Amino acid sequence: MTSPEGADGRPRGTSTGRLEAFSDGVFAIAITILVLELGLGAGAEDDLLGAFLAQWPAYLAYVVAFSTIGAAWMAHSVITEYVDRSDEGFARINLILLMLVSFLSFPTKLLGEFVAVEGAERVAVTIFGANLLLIAVVLSVLWRHAVKRSLIRPDMSDVEVTILTERLTPGLVGYGAFIVLGLFFPFVAVLGYFLIALALMLPLRRRR
Amino acid sequence: MTSPEGADGRPRGTSTGRLEAFSDGVFAIAITILVLELGLGAGAEDDLLGAFLAQWPAYLAYVVAFSTIGAAWMAHSVITEYVDRSDEGFARINLILLMLVSFLSFPTKLLGEFVAVEGAERVAVTIFGANLLLIAVVLSVLWRHAVKRSLIRPDMSDVEVTILTERLTPGLVGYGAFIVLGLFFPFVAVLGYFLIALALMLPLRRRR
Amino acid sequence: MTSPEGADGRPRGTSTGRLEAFSDGVFAIAITILVLELGLGAGAEDDLLGAFLAQWPAYLAYVVAFSTIGAAWMAHSVITEYVDRSDEGFARINLILLMLVSFLSFPTKLLGEFVAVEGAERVAVTIFGANLLLIAVVLSVLWRHAVKRSLIRPDMSDVEVTILTERLTPGLVGYGAFIVLGLFFPFVAVLGYFLIALALMLPLRRRR
Amino acid sequence: MTSPEGADGRPRGTSTGRLEAFSDGVFAIAITILVLELGLGAGAEDDLLGAFLAQWPAYLAYVVAFSTIGAAWMAHSVITEYVDRSDEGFARINLILLMLVSFLSFPTKLLGEFVAVEGAERVAVTIFGANLLLIAVVLSVLWRHAVKRSLIRPDMSDVEVTILTERLTPGLVGYGAFIVLGLFFPFVAVLGYFLIALALMLPLRRRR
Repeated sequence: MTSPEGADGRPRGTSTGRLEAFSDGVFAIAITILVLELGLGAGAEDDLLGAFLAQWPAYLAYVVAFSTIGAAWMAHSVITEYVDRSDEGFARINLILLMLVSFLSFPTKLLGEFVAVEGAERVAVTIFGANLLLIAVVLSVLWRHAVKRSLIRPDMSDVEVTILTERLTPGLVGYGAFIVLGLFFPFVAVLGYFLIALALMLPLRRRR
Repeated sequence: MTSPEGADGRPRGTSTGRLEAFSDGVFAIAITILVLELGLGAGAEDDLLGAFLAQWPAYLAYVVAFSTIGAAWMAHSVITEYVDRSDEGFARINLILLMLVSFLSFPTKLLGEFVAVEGAERVAVTIFGANLLLIAVVLSVLWRHAVKRSLIRPDMSDVEVTILTERLTPGLVGYGAFIVLGLFFPFVAVLGYFLIALALMLPLRRRR
Repeated sequence: MTSPEGADGRPRGTSTGRLEAFSDGVFAIAITILVLELGLGAGAEDDLLGAFLAQWPAYLAYVVAFSTIGAAWMAHSVITEYVDRSDEGFARINLILLMLVSFLSFPTKLLGEFVAVEGAERVAVTIFGANLLLIAVVLSVLWRHAVKRSLIRPDMSDVEVTILTERLTPGLVGYGAFIVLGLFFPFVAVLGYFLIALALMLPLRRRR
Repeated sequence: MTSPEGADGRPRGTSTGRLEAFSDGVFAIAITILVLELGLGAGAEDDLLGAFLAQWPAYLAYVVAFSTIGAAWMAHSVITEYVDRSDEGFARINLILLMLVSFLSFPTKLLGEFVAVEGAERVAVTIFGANLLLIAVVLSVLWRHAVKRSLIRPDMSDVEVTILTERLTPGLVGYGAFIVLGLFFPFVAVLGYFLIALALMLPLRRRR
């Protein structure tokens, strides 16, 4: 719905209800279909427990990807909570974010398949990390766009805005660092991606 | 919920809440499951980076299809924002639209698989373009039906209605033109489909 | 949310908001993932247009299944619109309905694969029809449960309740008849299922 | 949205609207994509009815998994209905719950494939049961966290809180018992899991 012309003379825009519902849907689907990549190879019935446990790289990739999408959804929730109007730029940046989040399913499949394969694991970990970095970059761009275009709620204080801006930054640095580290120690990078996801789930909002 | 009998004597109808929620769900799922078609062939582990990059036609198809569904969702959002009641015709046209949007996943798979295959690429690009054209046609029919049956909000001005009608038209012409062009230059047509999606994401609403 | 104790002394129950949202989600996903069953066999690139057109039984199954789920969703929308409270029985019958709707994806795959295969087509059409019949039966049971337990909105007239009850019945008879007919003329049954879906999309509510 | 500072001096938190919508989405997708694991092997067309019926272990797994996710969703609905604020702990426990619910699709596939295979069925049934147990544990942890952190609605009586706490416990004991039993009688355990799901769907709320 078009928001009423504010008495404070701020430019018109549209409310974020539909955009939130659509985004929540995409996040929920992207996080849930990760499981579709799991499966056992042929001949599993001879030693099902062994075959099940042998898929640990796929479970690791699943947990890291699930945590990252969960953390991105939480950050997205806070951003759209602070924002009360959307403009076309916001909607388009949001769509790019959703595209990157949806896409993660593919690098997750590669990571699960190749993280324990000598030689290929560097490539799989780097592609996965690049996708995570892009998600973090676009989340940050989305928030900065909202701040710049004054789409945020008038009752948010400057301090709260600054805190959220600062909270979105370490992810960028962290992903960049672990991508480089992953070229030498791929497995350490995967654990690093997991830790960043956990860190991003820490409170994004100032305690009052 | 059945809308209250308007004091303006307009015919009764139902509100669009459930229809919007259901449509948002279908759009969100259709756009997210596009990623399920991505994958590498056998023997990728010998040169994972090469195998990953060799899938560029699939990524191209993914981005074009994602952008198109995103643009269609934006147009659908604006239409249902302007519309405040639904009738059975509106619901059925909307269902046809959702069927075409859901179906796009299949031509996207064909496009990704065959856009770089001599001979088959013309067919894949044309099938993809035909699906996009049908989506644009049904979006336009949906809007015209709403205007004709007076389902739009009474506070929308004639100028706004006319602008939205005009904004939905170039897509039709554009898709038609690129389908024909695609018979001779398939790759150019794919880029054209992408540009139309970007154009459709431009503001659909009059600036005030 | 628990509905407030009505001044009219009706028994307590819970509002249908979450149940509607969850059901809309399942309907939307079930209808959208139908497309995942579509695909071409090996060797399609030699004659892509021929291979694409040869999949007509799968498209037919897709359209019939999509229409049926769409019609079931519309009927479900009307039922939950008339109902303003849910009890445990309603929630459980609703869950059985959602299970049958979700399951339809599998008979649709069988129908698409075997409707043009001599001998197997009778089985595929009958399984598909049985699923459709079960959906229609459970929709009817859901509505009758709501009427019997007085879950419907107090402002619904007896005439409106009777009309919806009557509107849900022909589907039962129609599916039963076409299942029997399908044992002799499988293809006619598929067209019959499609016609029933279209008929079920006709206005379920009394014109006022 | 941030909830208004309560006059009762309770600590601030965020409302559960987005969390409910996101969770409903994940539950709805997880329950609907179970069907994607169903399929017939090669050579089905010679005896389609026989091939269809031979998949009974997969249908059994489907029904048990569907019922369990349905029951978990119902319990989750009641919990979030009783809870009116979320904190970061609640959001993270909820995310772990959603991960376990989404994951169930994979053990369901294993159960359907191996429940009738001598030797492998013990492993498949135990993995499936372990996932169900974990879901029940995390549901219980989620509720206890809400009680401990006073996230529940002020108008809920202590009796109601105690009843829900008690209702969530038997599932834990039941799953534990059937997992042990399943090591000796795998098939009995599967039926036990089904019965627990049905029991969990019984009214979770005190009749008034």
